Amino acid sequence: MTERTIGVTELALRDAHQSLMATRMATEDMVGACAAIDRAGYWSAECWGGATFDSCIRFLNEDPWERLRTFKKLLPNTRTQMLLRGQNLLGYRHYADDVVDRFVEKAAINGMDVFRVFDALNDPRNLERAIKAVQKSGKHAQGTICYTISPVHDIDNYVRLARQLRDMGVDSIALKDMAALLKPQPAADIVAAIKQEMPDMTVAVHCHSTTGVTLVSLWRAVESGADLIDTAISSMSLGPGHNPTESFQEVLEGTGYKADLDKEALHEIRDHFAEVRPRYAKFESKFTVDTDIFESQIPGGMLSNLESQLVAQGAGDKVVEVLKEVPKVRAASGYPPLVTPTSQIVGTQAVFNVLMGEWKTMTGEFADMVLGYYGKTEGETDPMVIEKAAKQTGKEKIDVRPADLIPNEWDNLRAEAEKLEGFDGTDEDVLTYALFPTVAPVFFKNRKNGPQNVSQSVEELEAERLLAAGDSGSGTVRIPITYDVTIGDKTHTVSVKPAEK
Amino acid sequence: MTERTIGVTELALRDAHQSLMATRMATEDMVGACAAIDRAGYWSAECWGGATFDSCIRFLNEDPWERLRTFKKLLPNTRTQMLLRGQNLLGYRHYADDVVDRFVEKAAINGMDVFRVFDALNDPRNLERAIKAVQKSGKHAQGTICYTISPVHDIDNYVRLARQLRDMGVDSIALKDMAALLKPQPAADIVAAIKQEMPDMTVAVHCHSTTGVTLVSLWRAVESGADLIDTAISSMSLGPGHNPTESFQEVLEGTGYKADLDKEALHEIRDHFAEVRPRYAKFESKFTVDTDIFESQIPGGMLSNLESQLVAQGAGDKVVEVLKEVPKVRAASGYPPLVTPTSQIVGTQAVFNVLMGEWKTMTGEFADMVLGYYGKTEGETDPMVIEKAAKQTGKEKIDVRPADLIPNEWDNLRAEAEKLEGFDGTDEDVLTYALFPTVAPVFFKNRKNGPQNVSQSVEELEAERLLAAGDSGSGTVRIPITYDVTIGDKTHTVSVKPAEK
Repeated sequence: MTERTIGVTELALRDAHQSLMATRMATEDMVGACAAIDRAGYWSAECWGGATFDSCIRFLNEDPWERLRTFKKLLPNTRTQMLLRGQNLLGYRHYADDVVDRFVEKAAINGMDVFRVFDALNDPRNLERAIKAVQKSGKHAQGTICYTISPVHDIDNYVRLARQLRDMGVDSIALKDMAALLKPQPAADIVAAIKQEMPDMTVAVHCHSTTGVTLVSLWRAVESGADLIDTAISSMSLGPGHNPTESFQEVLEGTGYKADLDKEALHEIRDHFAEVRPRYAKFESKFTVDTDIFESQIPGGMLSNLESQLVAQGAGDKVVEVLKEVPKVRAASGYPPLVTPTSQIVGTQAVFNVLMGEWKTMTGEFADMVLGYYGKTEGETDPMVIEKAAKQTGKEKIDVRPADLIPNEWDNLRAEAEKLEGFDGTDEDVLTYALFPTVAPVFFKNRKNGPQNVSQSVEELEAERLLAAGDSGSGTVRIPITYDVTIGDKTHTVSVKPAEK
Repeated sequence: MTERTIGVTELALRDAHQSLMATRMATEDMVGACAAIDRAGYWSAECWGGATFDSCIRFLNEDPWERLRTFKKLLPNTRTQMLLRGQNLLGYRHYADDVVDRFVEKAAINGMDVFRVFDALNDPRNLERAIKAVQKSGKHAQGTICYTISPVHDIDNYVRLARQLRDMGVDSIALKDMAALLKPQPAADIVAAIKQEMPDMTVAVHCHSTTGVTLVSLWRAVESGADLIDTAISSMSLGPGHNPTESFQEVLEGTGYKADLDKEALHEIRDHFAEVRPRYAKFESKFTVDTDIFESQIPGGMLSNLESQLVAQGAGDKVVEVLKEVPKVRAASGYPPLVTPTSQIVGTQAVFNVLMGEWKTMTGEFADMVLGYYGKTEGETDPMVIEKAAKQTGKEKIDVRPADLIPNEWDNLRAEAEKLEGFDGTDEDVLTYALFPTVAPVFFKNRKNGPQNVSQSVEELEAERLLAAGDSGSGTVRIPITYDVTIGDKTHTVSVKPAEK
């Protein structure tokens, strides 16, 4: 029996640390794994895009373009891959087409090979320009379908989306399951249906592991014809992250499919991140598995956001009411998938509806969404809600592609960027400014100080471990420790450490 | 389409805490979940046997028989289930048949419904007496096949074992994958082959989650005809434990199979253990997923044992050599599955071979094993090794069932037990003594002091958390803390705490 090889996309360098440790991993903590990643035989290594661009300039004082060039240099034999939010690029608004074109062109020049392009509403019009730009640059354009569950989302719907992507000429189609909602049976059904209609289309499946079911979903996707599967090396896997690469490879053994990865290289990658990960522990949350989302349809991150919003407004007792309101708000707005930014938009509107009365006040973002300024949702929007949104904002409902209303803005953006201290004159810097207009100026100014690694040192961790291991409340001091002890008005600095022999 | 219902065995009360937290969970930390477990709709709740008996008397000052009666009372609508090591019962030697009979009888009387009976060597003769005793007591006898990988273990072999168990008249057959070695394809193949030969036999599958692949194996076992599946509630799942109950139920949705469990009850069980588990954190090891065993064939626990044995003998540099010796020792002894106690027996002999020369010195246990005193292995034992073992020990190779050589011993055991301080006169106490002759006397003496919960209190955990959260090395004291500070010969007791307002 000839075995069919399934391509694997390694997520350790991007989505894994985005999902597990708030995107905080420094480039210097990843470069050491690149040689092994490059020889492991992955189809691609996702290493850029998503929230990493933002995190680089906001938290790490790293130039994201420099990170991209670094990965490209260290991964000469492996496709680099990024996640791109369609017309939003890596920012939080729609950009004019000339900015989209320039961003993709520059990403390609700096080393990007595979562009996974998605839109939170699954509106193909929001993907089209970016995909064209990728094609123009000669790179791999992967059109993406976000998976969600609703009364208007069925297999036909996903196949129609796939058809639209195919008609744009994408090189492959990704089914993206950011909330770990994709159960094995729909995974099998959707992939089989797409493959039946377009047998030659390369199909990729991306699942998170949050709910604990998706390794089975990946298996069933493979069995149904999927070509590419996303996983993360075991030491960077599970919880809100992804299924372990090594386990996926072992799952296929003897089945007629294989993931042709070099096990020695996988060991090296695993050992590298096993050493790095504990230093980022303060960014991780305790987590095993959470299947609640199957019932609530509310992703874990969204739930904790809602709770803190309510508590901040002294309405902590309204949580259950808000959770019941979320599905209503989602239905009234045409069943958007709940991902960034739609999860925040729907959630905040549900809070408003509960605290101020249903549809009495709309957030600007929610009004924009129901008026079409984010694109088209799969379901119909409640006409009453559209009417109220129009009345409240004085805006009209639009049916055109949102970006059609945005005039070219590149020249303006460059002119603004040029005024900034530390701007280096490159188009890359203009793009950084365009994406994060409030953070970029600070970053440009501080860039010369070089990358800031926000992880803890091994020494700090050891000190914490020793503290925690001591008898709490009383006991021995095991490491040098200094206290300010204040008695009355006087502060004594007291140092205590094990006596030197 | 009619859905086929798959029975679920919940492991939270036994194997889950045995695997995750060294079997340390106190009965009082489990009783709160029992009402929910009882109404969830499980096929059974595993709650006794394995290492719990030992742990009760050794660490928790709990009477294991009392624990069993407690569970039986709290689970009136759910089958209780235990793991029984065949002729070894719950101890570490072979017992005479009269002790086996008495143990099973007493377990049944005290509340046990389902006896999962296994033998480390898969020698059916070591199961036969216990299974007969279960049948005599009118309870459910589940014959067990331990899964392992070796040149002599193939599907025919597992089917033959199943046939032997069927011929004993078992009520069901369990495939037990204690090392998480069972990949999806062999899981499907073995279950299908057994079901093909005996379509009416109830087949249970037990997998650990160590290697990250086995939820897929459970799915494929279901698809191939398995009737009963073992899982652990999500808050007591994963790592060296088991796959999450809730995820398993979700995996089946829409597939034509279902696990008919009440989701509200599952939430309650989950929340209960989510609160309990952190208090046992000091017994847990950091762990995500480990697929190394697929290559090394050496279970994680055995590996760390070998390493510490070698380090203790100043031979830490010999680890790699020993790891290479293990497969040779296993081959020479007829490929025993590597579980307790065979993993220790094989591992220690590998250490001896490396340190003292191959087969120069045998441990008593290894000699006993190759001479047949533990039963029959699947493969042939190397005749040279048998000869050396016979020569070294002066014992003969036996082919009979090992317990055939053990005369009835109940009366002696009772006589010995009766001499012990704190012995309560019951057969149950005689059995406790029979199983753990060195620990039981201490337990009997201390029993009156009542159960000792070895978990940490919420307050202790909070104190540790605060200590760890403080700046290490210097910073604020957030909780009252007392130090003995010694200067020269004089010790000052210094108390530091946040000033009271």
